[in-house]
Order: sequence, then structure tokens, then C-alpha cells
Amino acid sequence: MRKKGIIVRKGMKIQKQISQKAYRSTDGFLRHYQQLVKDVVIPYQYTVLQDKAEGVEKSHVIQNFINAGKALAGQDVGDGFYGMVFQDSDLAKWLEAVAYILEQFPDAELEQTADELIDLVEKAQDSDGYLNTYFTIKDKEKRWTNLLEGHELYCSGHMMEAAVAYYETTGKDKLLRVMERNAEHIYKRFVTEKTPGYPGHPEVELALLKMYRACGNRHCLELAKHFIDVRGVDANYYEKEIAARDWVVWGNDATNYEYQQSGKPVREQKDATGHSVRAVYLYTGMADLASETDDEELLQACRNLWKSVVHRRMYVTGGIGSSVEGEAFTVDYDLPNDTAYAETCASIGLMFFASRMLENEVKREYADIMELAFYNTVLAGMQLDGKRFFYVNPLEVLPGTSGVIKTHRHTLPARPTWYACACCPPNVARLLASFGKYAYGENEDMVFCHMYAAGTVAFENGMEMECKTGYPYEYQVTYEIKHGGKGIAVRVPAYSKEFTLLKNGKEAKYEMRDGYVYLEEVQDGDVIVLKLDGTAHFVYTSSKVAANTGMTAIKRGPLVYCFEGVDNAEDVLSLRLKKDSKIEIRDFEAALLGGTEKITVEALRMQDAHDSEEEGLYMIKPPVEIPCTATAVPYYTWGNRGENQMRVWINYI
Amino acid sequence: MRKKGIIVRKGMKIQKQISQKAYRSTDGFLRHYQQLVKDVVIPYQYTVLQDKAEGVEKSHVIQNFINAGKALAGQDVGDGFYGMVFQDSDLAKWLEAVAYILEQFPDAELEQTADELIDLVEKAQDSDGYLNTYFTIKDKEKRWTNLLEGHELYCSGHMMEAAVAYYETTGKDKLLRVMERNAEHIYKRFVTEKTPGYPGHPEVELALLKMYRACGNRHCLELAKHFIDVRGVDANYYEKEIAARDWVVWGNDATNYEYQQSGKPVREQKDATGHSVRAVYLYTGMADLASETDDEELLQACRNLWKSVVHRRMYVTGGIGSSVEGEAFTVDYDLPNDTAYAETCASIGLMFFASRMLENEVKREYADIMELAFYNTVLAGMQLDGKRFFYVNPLEVLPGTSGVIKTHRHTLPARPTWYACACCPPNVARLLASFGKYAYGENEDMVFCHMYAAGTVAFENGMEMECKTGYPYEYQVTYEIKHGGKGIAVRVPAYSKEFTLLKNGKEAKYEMRDGYVYLEEVQDGDVIVLKLDGTAHFVYTSSKVAANTGMTAIKRGPLVYCFEGVDNAEDVLSLRLKKDSKIEIRDFEAALLGGTEKITVEALRMQDAHDSEEEGLYMIKPPVEIPCTATAVPYYTWGNRGENQMRVWINYI
Repeated sequence: MRKKGIIVRKGMKIQKQISQKAYRSTDGFLRHYQQLVKDVVIPYQYTVLQDKAEGVEKSHVIQNFINAGKALAGQDVGDGFYGMVFQDSDLAKWLEAVAYILEQFPDAELEQTADELIDLVEKAQDSDGYLNTYFTIKDKEKRWTNLLEGHELYCSGHMMEAAVAYYETTGKDKLLRVMERNAEHIYKRFVTEKTPGYPGHPEVELALLKMYRACGNRHCLELAKHFIDVRGVDANYYEKEIAARDWVVWGNDATNYEYQQSGKPVREQKDATGHSVRAVYLYTGMADLASETDDEELLQACRNLWKSVVHRRMYVTGGIGSSVEGEAFTVDYDLPNDTAYAETCASIGLMFFASRMLENEVKREYADIMELAFYNTVLAGMQLDGKRFFYVNPLEVLPGTSGVIKTHRHTLPARPTWYACACCPPNVARLLASFGKYAYGENEDMVFCHMYAAGTVAFENGMEMECKTGYPYEYQVTYEIKHGGKGIAVRVPAYSKEFTLLKNGKEAKYEMRDGYVYLEEVQDGDVIVLKLDGTAHFVYTSSKVAANTGMTAIKRGPLVYCFEGVDNAEDVLSLRLKKDSKIEIRDFEAALLGGTEKITVEALRMQDAHDSEEEGLYMIKPPVEIPCTATAVPYYTWGNRGENQMRVWINYI
Repeated sequence: MRKKGIIVRKGMKIQKQISQKAYRSTDGFLRHYQQLVKDVVIPYQYTVLQDKAEGVEKSHVIQNFINAGKALAGQDVGDGFYGMVFQDSDLAKWLEAVAYILEQFPDAELEQTADELIDLVEKAQDSDGYLNTYFTIKDKEKRWTNLLEGHELYCSGHMMEAAVAYYETTGKDKLLRVMERNAEHIYKRFVTEKTPGYPGHPEVELALLKMYRACGNRHCLELAKHFIDVRGVDANYYEKEIAARDWVVWGNDATNYEYQQSGKPVREQKDATGHSVRAVYLYTGMADLASETDDEELLQACRNLWKSVVHRRMYVTGGIGSSVEGEAFTVDYDLPNDTAYAETCASIGLMFFASRMLENEVKREYADIMELAFYNTVLAGMQLDGKRFFYVNPLEVLPGTSGVIKTHRHTLPARPTWYACACCPPNVARLLASFGKYAYGENEDMVFCHMYAAGTVAFENGMEMECKTGYPYEYQVTYEIKHGGKGIAVRVPAYSKEFTLLKNGKEAKYEMRDGYVYLEEVQDGDVIVLKLDGTAHFVYTSSKVAANTGMTAIKRGPLVYCFEGVDNAEDVLSLRLKKDSKIEIRDFEAALLGGTEKITVEALRMQDAHDSEEEGLYMIKPPVEIPCTATAVPYYTWGNRGENQMRVWINYI
């Protein structure tokens, strides 16, 4: 018999994410964000989902569930369905965020709201287990006829994730049962009845693996494996699907195999292609399945795809999917700064993928990238006040061009309040609320600290400890062991060439493997201190990346810095950095941008040297170099002080 | 009574283009190109127009005229119309090129071909003067109902230009009469009957002014003035037009006022906007009308638009219209190199505009830009063999990215043989064939040398001279006065800070005004020598242009140089130039790229300095600087040695 709310992990060999119950944030960087999610983001997004937020794009998602319930009850559906074909997922992601946040911040009223919404979801489920408001309201006959665009499996996946989370933190299993029935419905169709097809937008695979661990239902595992194994085997599946139906959502091109990662079986795929969120959600499911089933071949495919993403197609900010065309990966080294897409959701998905790779093999590269994506692109996705969001995260913004001209229409210079396609805002909320899962891991003998998050952790293996740190603004992390008896492994990031590990004030004896320091066994009362090198430094891009030749950026720990007009006389274009100059970290300012430190660096202001007006834009004389000080702030804080120029990469001399 | 073939210029005050009869190219750079137009381009394009070129996009333009003639004669139209709605203009531009080339290279067979084609054009003209094969074949009822997209006035304009040219060089006026009837047809509709509307694609304005000078028909002048004056006065005209019809060509957005330069009256327009070819064709007509009618207000508008184009929206290569979206201007300083559009036709149009501005005021800036556009973007538009053409002229090309990924689908790394929209190839041909008109000008008292073109010139004012020069590879220009008695004005380009002017071997006494040296009167046998500074030098972009910060390019005279992979170890991205290093011009190689000189310069090869593979694309160590020699070739020659990397702008240290 399973204990309610406890999720059993089978086949886990290396280490796994901790339970949401295990981590409580305390004072520090993360606590601030989790509190913001609780106090602002969740309530704000709820008003949006209820269509009560003023001046904000209508969501209608809750009404869609109500109307779907009416449709099933044979009642009038009122104003019917409104929104994107994947609108259901907005509620699912919000519910998932609520589930996580309730663990840390119990709130009877919020929980009741969630319970009531779950009742609506249950009522919107058909008797055969089918659940999707778009098709239930608009046309039941069209169910499952458009996997390419219909997002039914995507929406199911997100509701499964919400169900698992809500079960995990509240112990309530109503939504879990709803989604288990839904999973059985899908299993029957695609496995039992052998109906061909695979998800247009991967997501259900990773969700089914969560379901499997929560419900213990092997059909969920088999179904996840089925979708991963059949993907791309019949590369022409979507073309046949289109030929068999007389309707479309947008009319996606079924032959764009790269876009939907369907050109060949996933085990044979070596380059990250197509829609970047679809890609990393797929890879997450693949990595998860590989660890769950001990599938070395699948893991090797994941490693190849990881390298493709991280070593050849990723921005320094952990942003991925460089092109607005298809929200997609393009080719190696194509990383334009001003037209970058770098969707917030894609970097969240990259964190998922990294976290699942860590469950296959504990290597710091995965955690380094997970942290990089988090502290830069994911956090930049949200205004510091929690009420505005970026979908797109460019590395260069010029007011008057960005968000204005057609080629730059997607690179907005300021965060909007909401989007018609509102995938990113609730995705940020659920990620922030469940950060502990990504920061900490465990197995029977050992606990793992992948990222540094102040708070208490009560591991399932019995270890208990408190982490104290002002990271990412302080580079000392202290682990106070409350209940020991197991080992502890802590990542030392690649950026920190030097580090010190102390145990009870003395240099600790440790083993270093793949970027983690391992202490075999710690005892109650032990205090472990990791001192990292948080020196700010320049970073250079491989010359294969055309967009960044001759340029440098500044990093400190995981934080990428950027130069904004407001700190630099409204002109960052004419700045030049001097690669030998000293980078100074200014004092922490609690009132600045949610609490941050500016960085200053000696620089040159390049002044056009016109011979005559006739020269126009092109001058024979080199620009005059005027010494100045350039000021940078962390990338995640950009765009919080009005519209202004912003650049991450600056030319250097 | 007018003498056949002589075009009378009224109201000319400053100076005007010479007649096509006046200039004969002799040995030199231009002669080579004109010979190529005669020997290769015109015959090749004729096979294309006849649909006889293998592996080339079908044109069908001649057949369209045949079929239109049949339609008017009540006969079966066979295979009907094929091609773009503006397909007629391809034949018109070819005929115009033929007309020009026949002057220098008499060819009875070619002239007979042209005569026969003109017979076809005449047969395709309706009894009321209407001429357009698309509407005549497809649906006569739709005539004049879609000025926004229909290109009837555009096609008329190009055929008028051909008519004037053919009349000018052959004295034959059949096509001129056809087009005068066509002009009267248009005049009746838009002036006499006061039908609202103005051209979707400006062109007819500048053509009507040519017609006016060739025919002496004031209706042509009035009609040109009418179209210029009404443009944008009723900014909503196209919306009304759409509301009144039930068909579209592409469904262009009528409210995109900037695209069609129709948001406000042209005299009030200050920024160059929208489709760049439409824009410069319009401005050419405006400038021409301003000089013809002594309209200072219109001239001031032209000056404003000139500055907008040249000082804020032009590439160093004279390319304009930076965006593929609408083939258009965007905003000030938005000049991306890798996604540049910079259509060949737009730079040809910029030369037209410059030449007409010179007819308003002799200032070297106009001639400098005319020359810049010619020697770089216009010439780059054609393969050195005369058989392949670029529509788009990027300043950075990376095989595997350029022409491949969606955002770069237009920046092809190699010239195609032809285009479905084939505006550029015949446009290059007619420009090259009539180069003398742009190079030389005259008024009653003076001859003007705007550009340096070896050859003999017999001016209408009686002056005769021969120009000898190896320009743009030699920077000495000699004018041997065969028949004097008038003054001569020669431009000294802005790039040549120093120069020497000799008259019969001694320093000449001259007056310098607006960048031209004026010699009041020269006599038979005088030899004028202008020695320019052709030193190769670096050029820097204003820091307002984000794409070029930290970069430099190399120019020599009007020639912009570029770095290609084939000369630089297949890697131009890792090159860095040193701004203080010496630029060396290598010996002229007749066998290299149609005869050119390479430039070499001390440079650095930046080698990625990885700490470990984990770093991926982003490294903490600065790249290692390895001294090397970088080699550049003139931009107009790029892409003639296979697909490879190309960059104009290179980072400097």
C-alpha cells in the first residue's frame, strides 16, 4: 500500500530530485522569489485566468473548463471555447505552481480555490477518460485527428504534472485519478488499439513518467516509452494525418520534420532541431525514460542532443532556440543577439533536461547549465514585480528598433502583462515554486547539492540539513548537518577554478568526481563550508559565432551581466571594454532592482570622428577613444527601469 | 519640327545628363562591362525572355505580348499569361538596354529583333491606348481597379523608358508613338476624367518626364506632376480601392502607408520608408520634376529624403533597403550585414535619384554616392560572366546559414541564373549600357564629369573630348580636349583628400565649388589631368549602427573591399584587423576576377582558448592572437569563386 503523497521512484540508480516536501527556502535570493510567487504571481495569474485582470489579454481558461463540463452534461455551452488550442495548459501550469507553493506556504483559501478548480477539471472529463476543453466544446468528432497541431497530449501532460504535484504536496488524489483515467484512455488508444501517431508537442512523455512514479501504474511508463519509441519511426505520420482530415488549426507544415523532431527515430537524432520547447521537453522525457529503464542507447542519444544544444546552439545566458521562425533552433553557431528568440519556456525546459540528465549521471556540466539558464533567461522572463513577463529574451535591445521593425517584432524592449499564447508566465511560476527539486537530489547513501539554495532540506534518505548562503551575490555556501549518517556531494561550478571546502572549520578531505566534491559520510552537527571564486570576469565566445566576434561579456558566478542605457549615458553602442581592465563589483544595494550589485569596468567611449557631414555614417578617421566607466547589472534585471538600450556583448580592445 | 532622335530638354538650368549618342566607351573598366552586356548579357537575357535558357525559371514575357495581341484580335490566347503581374517590364528593360547598346555596337540583327518585338508590343496595345498583357489576356474588366498591386503604371513606365531610349539611339519612333498613345490613355483617365488614384509602384513618373522631353507632349509632364502631387494626399485611397473590388494579386496591406510611400503628400515626407525600389524611383521622378519645373519646395523634399537615405539608412556599399520584410527601409541605423536585403535594383534607383539631384544642384555628394552604389552593389549584382545575378546583396555570408535558415533565406551565397521576379538582371544591363549618361553632364557653357569613364564624349554644346583612365584601379584621369571653347567641371571625390589638377602639364588654375573643380574655358588640344588619392584606407561606421560596432572595413577610391574565405584559410570570422597596420595594394592581376587587385593587411587570427571542452562556446580566457596576413578583394567580385564565407566589416584592435 502506498502512503498518500509519497511518490515511489523505481529503477532509480544514480540520484533523483528531492520531493517537494523536502525543501523549505529560508532567507535569501530564492526565498524572495518564492514569496513573490506566493504573494503576487499566483494571485495575479489567477485574476488573469478568471479574466479579471484589467487591460490584459483574455484567458477564458477557467470558463473553458466550465463550458466543457456543460457540454458533457448536455447543457448549453454558453460562450463556448476561447483561446489557443492549448489553453487548458495555462490552468494546469498554474495549478502545478499552486501545488508547490502550498507546501511552503499553507493557505486554506488558495487550496480551496484549487480544489474547486480541480472539481471543474473533473467535470470536464468525458466518461471515457478524455479531457480537453477545446475539442469537447467545439467538436468531439475531431478528437485525436490532429496530433500535429491539436495539443491534446500536451494539455494532458501538463494536467498530469499538476495532478502529481497536487498529490505530492496536499495528499489529495482527485486530480491524480482524473489524470490516471486520462492516461488509460490514451494508453488504450495508442498502445492497446495500436492507433498510429505521436505528440505534435512533446510533454506528455515526461508527465507520464511522473504519473508512473506517483500512481505506480505501469501503463504510464509503457505509454511514455511508446511515444518516445515510435516518434519519427514513421516520419510521414503527420502527412497521412493531414490527408485523412479536412481541418487545420494553423495549417502547420507536416513535412517540416525538423520542426517537430520527427524526421528520424529519437535515438538517431544528433542535432537539436525545430521548436526549441518541444525539443527540450522531448529530451527531458527521453532522459527520464533512460534513467527509469536503464536504457543506455537512449541515454547516449540524450548526451548527443545535450551537446548539440549546449555546445553549439546556446546563448551565454542559457537561452536556446535562436530564431523567431518556428521559435526554433537553426544551425550551429547561429546566435544573433538582437533577433534572438530564446524563449523563457525553452530555458525552463533546458533546466528540466539538465535535471533529468543528472539523474543519469552526476556531472557538473548539467548543473552548471541548469543554473545558468535559471539565473539568466528564466529569471529575466519575469519583471521584478512578478506581474509582467518576457516570452522572448534578446541579448541586445535598441528602442525604436526592437519590437518595432518586422524582423525584430518579437524582441520587445519591455515585458508585457500577458500573452495570447501564455505558456511562459505560469511556467516561470511553477519552476520557481519547485526550485528545490532542481537544487537538491538524493539516493539512499548520499545527498546532492546541484545548485545553492538557502533553506532546510529533509531528505527521504534521512539526512537533514540547512543551507545558508547569499548566493549568487555571496560565494560562500554553508551546510549545517542537522541529521547526518549519509554522504554529501556538492557541485563546484566550472567557473570557480579555485575553491575551498571546509568541514568544521578545517580543510575537508574529499573526493572530486565530475565536478562534485564527495564527502563520504557526515554527522549530526557537522558544518560544511564551500567557498567559491565569485570574481567577476570577462567571457569570450568562440569565433565560430559570427554575432559575437570581437566582443566580450561579463560574468560573475552564474550571473551574466548586461549594459543598459540608463547606467551608461543612454548609449551602450559606443562603449568598448578593455580586456585587461579591472572589473569592480560595487556594494550590494538592497533597493536596486530587487537587491543587486552593479559592476563597473574601465571602458572607452568611442566618439564618431567626422571629417565632414558629407561622410554620413562612414568615416575615414577612427573614432576618438574617450576613457569612461561602464556599468553593468545582472541580465535577469534588465528592462526594469523603462525602455532603454541593452547589450550583453560589448566590443573590446 | 523636331529632329528625329534628338531629345529636347526644356527648363534645364543647371546641367543635364548627356545623350546616349554622346559617349563611346574605349579601353577600360567600363568598356569591358559594356562589351559583356553586348556579347553575353543581352543575348543571354534574350534566350531567357524566349524561354530558351536551360534550367532557368520560365519568363514567357514575349509570349505574353503575342498572346495579348491575339486577345485583342479576338483570337485564341493559347497558353495565356504566365509570370508576375509586372512581367511586361522585363521585356521593356531588356529593350531599353538593347537601345543603349546599339548606339555603341551597331548590330543589324539585334536591331531587327528589337523591331520585331516592338511590333509585338504595338499589337498588344488596345485601340484606346491601354497596354498591359496581364490584364489584356486575363481580364480586361479588371483594368485600373488595382493600382496598389497591379503594376499597370509601372509596366507602362518601363516601356516608356524603352521607347525613349530606342527613339534616342535608332531614331525609330514606333514604340515612342505607342507609348505616347498609352500616356494619353492614362492622362485621359487620371487627369481629364479625374479618376482618383496613384501608382502602387512609382516608376511612371520618371518615365513620363523622359517621354515629355522626347515627344514634347505637355500631357506627359502634367501627368507626371499629377501623380507626384496627388500621392498621399488621399492617404486612404488604396483602402477605398480594395473595398471597391473583389480580387487581389497578393493581398497587399493597403494601410501599410509607409510601404507604398503614401502616408502623406510627398512634399511632407522626411524619412525614406517602405519598399526601397519604389521609394527611389519615386524620388527620382520628384527630383526630375523639380528640375523640370523649377519647384524649390519639391527639391527641398528631395534633399530631405536624400539625407534620410544616404546619411541614415545606407550600407557602406551603397546598398539600401535593409530588410527582406517588404524589401524595405526600416528605421535609422538599422543596417544588419548578414540579413541585409540591399536589392540591386534599389542601388540602381539610388543612382537614378543621385543623377537627377545633380540636375538640380551640382554637389559631389550626389556623384560620390552614385559612384559608390555603382562600383559596389550594382556591379555585385551580376556574376563576372554576365550570366548570374544577385537580387540581394548582403555584407556577410556564411555558407550553411546564409540562404539556408529562414531568417537568412534571401541572402544567397551564390548568384542564381534568374529569378521568378526578374527585375534586377535587365536593370543592371540597361544601367551598364547607359553608364555615360550618369558619368557625364552638360549645359550650354560647361561639361561635367561626375564619374570617370574612359571614352570619347561629343557633347551637344559642341565640346568634344576623350577621357583616358584605368579607374577604379588607377587614380589618374586625363581629359584630352578635342574641341574646346566651353568650360569643364570635374568632381573630386570626398575620399580624395588630396588631389592635383594639371592643365597641359602645369598646375591648373581652377575654382572649387561643392566638390567640383571648374575650369572656365578649355581650348582644342588642352590636356587636363586629375590625379586623385587612391590610397586604400580603413573606414569606420558611426557607433549608431549596432551591426558594425568595433569593426572596420577597407575602401580604395569608390571600391569597398571584402574578405572571402577562399583568400583567408576559409575562416574570416576569426580575423581581426589592426587599425594602425599598413594596407598594401597588390599588383593588378588581369586574370583575377575579371581583372583586379587584391589588398593585404596585417591582421590577427583569433584562436579560441578553451580551458576544457565543458566550456562549450563561451570561454574565460581571451582568444590567442596569432599574427597573420588578411586578404581582401573588391566587394563587387565576391561570390565568383564558389560558396565561401564573406565579410565586409571586420573587428579591429
